Amino acid sequence: MENKNLFTFKEAADFLKANDDFLIISHKSPDGDTIGCAFSLYYGLTQLGKRAKIACADEFPGKYAYIFNDYKKESHDFAEKIVVAVDLADKQLFGSLEEKYASNVDLCIDHHPSNTFYAKKTLLRSTAAAASEVMFDVLVELGVALDKNIANALYTGVLTDSGCFKYSNTSANTHIVAAKLIEAGCDYAKINKDLFDTKSRARLAIEKEVIDGLEYHFDNKCAVITITEDMLKRTAVEEGETEGLAALPREIEGVEVGITLKEKDGGFKVSLRTSELIDASEVCKSLGGGGHARAAGCFLEGSAENAKAVLLEKISKLI
Amino acid sequence: MENKNLFTFKEAADFLKANDDFLIISHKSPDGDTIGCAFSLYYGLTQLGKRAKIACADEFPGKYAYIFNDYKKESHDFAEKIVVAVDLADKQLFGSLEEKYASNVDLCIDHHPSNTFYAKKTLLRSTAAAASEVMFDVLVELGVALDKNIANALYTGVLTDSGCFKYSNTSANTHIVAAKLIEAGCDYAKINKDLFDTKSRARLAIEKEVIDGLEYHFDNKCAVITITEDMLKRTAVEEGETEGLAALPREIEGVEVGITLKEKDGGFKVSLRTSELIDASEVCKSLGGGGHARAAGCFLEGSAENAKAVLLEKISKLI
Repeated sequence: MENKNLFTFKEAADFLKANDDFLIISHKSPDGDTIGCAFSLYYGLTQLGKRAKIACADEFPGKYAYIFNDYKKESHDFAEKIVVAVDLADKQLFGSLEEKYASNVDLCIDHHPSNTFYAKKTLLRSTAAAASEVMFDVLVELGVALDKNIANALYTGVLTDSGCFKYSNTSANTHIVAAKLIEAGCDYAKINKDLFDTKSRARLAIEKEVIDGLEYHFDNKCAVITITEDMLKRTAVEEGETEGLAALPREIEGVEVGITLKEKDGGFKVSLRTSELIDASEVCKSLGGGGHARAAGCFLEGSAENAKAVLLEKISKLI
Repeated sequence: MENKNLFTFKEAADFLKANDDFLIISHKSPDGDTIGCAFSLYYGLTQLGKRAKIACADEFPGKYAYIFNDYKKESHDFAEKIVVAVDLADKQLFGSLEEKYASNVDLCIDHHPSNTFYAKKTLLRSTAAAASEVMFDVLVELGVALDKNIANALYTGVLTDSGCFKYSNTSANTHIVAAKLIEAGCDYAKINKDLFDTKSRARLAIEKEVIDGLEYHFDNKCAVITITEDMLKRTAVEEGETEGLAALPREIEGVEVGITLKEKDGGFKVSLRTSELIDASEVCKSLGGGGHARAAGCFLEGSAENAKAVLLEKISKLI
């Protein structure tokens, strides 16, 4: 089935060139990739003399502040005419912005195979480790000069979504993009140290609690951690500080399926990480979520025990 | 002062082409880079129909076994005529092989700025993050086809010496080499997972105990962790599994001095990590140890409480 709404890189660049006033939208619970995409596009468009602003249902974590440095809010007094969604696979990922914007997206730039093509036009490269890898080619096609702001934003996206070049979604192209961003002057050593080699005391405290509550199932092939609102409160971690914790269960020797349950809005956000044995995206899709083959997510209402039971039942049939 | 003993890449390749029987030497306490260099050169030379064997003062760690897969010891019955040292900056790094070989090295391939030019000819690129990055260009110059064995060996060297592309020694070229090795079929995801993202249950257990016992001093600027023999026994971690734990205290936000005390032989092995504020090497030297400005070590007899008191007293004068 051919999708008529797909854009090529050239078509996407031509469309951006032909317009002037943009609203760029990042997905809810924003991560390094959606932020990197949004800000690199903002810097690129303003470099070309256009006007742009960025919106997101949730606040951007403070640890990414180095990306926002030169984002000028005072220039925001214009009517956004063109809506661009970045790294945003599905309408529900607009969060509180869904009603206002999700049905009015002119262009979506993404890398998720699970993209639902909700936008009028979509530029999708599902082999890219990060949407920022796609955005890199968009900006090059646009003729934007890769300055330090753009390089730092894109590097952050590529770095975080490829798991620091470790995940199997990393490709030769991911490294080639990283090489070009280093040449463009990105602060890769500082970004890596600040994002990955620095832990707050609160983060350390919640890590300890999470390890305390670690559970094994199916002959230790499946590990489950749970992050409750009570734990978040007690350890006083901030939103962004729990990022990466979801990788922990799958990192344990012998574990093929890692499950992280995070309490939110009367239910649990599920993050599922799997080996080649199980398609995480299929499991999560069957529960109303989505994602990638090795990392996917969904939301389950009710208690942690309920969420766990639902997931373990699904997994028992596959493991 | 011009160094007459330097080789260009072409000269090094011509020299290797002109000879047939090689002994390749790795440095003592071998790491991923010296191993990656040695084995990629071995695979490259044998691919060209030459004979080669590898020597090292110490055993190669088992975690790198995937690199040795196709190393054929049965073909070692030949007189090595040409000695090549890889990633080996200084004679003393030959360890127990120093007397026999260190003064008879025909070619040294390295990236250390501290290389002492002990070899007859040296190919040095001190801007390379890893000697394996240098070896990549040697093998390309030699016309060797980058097969999976070579790609895995070189990728391991580049990965480990660049701190997974995080350290400031990483350059655009480091990423370009990584891209070419991925194209050549290296098992980058598995290598990363096995070397860096796999924790044994025992490691996880000792991490928890270590975080439990974490102490802060001097307004949280100094953090101390203690690893007792009792903890090692209780969690059943193996020797190699505590690697990297010493980095933990300094990774905590706001901590300028990280101290790790590890019980051994009736006392405590001290690992000191510091910010620019304090010279770790000076502190450790004054206690009979040594090391670098940001990472140093010493040994203190007696109890953990005694070791802590001695160190904190020294640090109180500097912080």
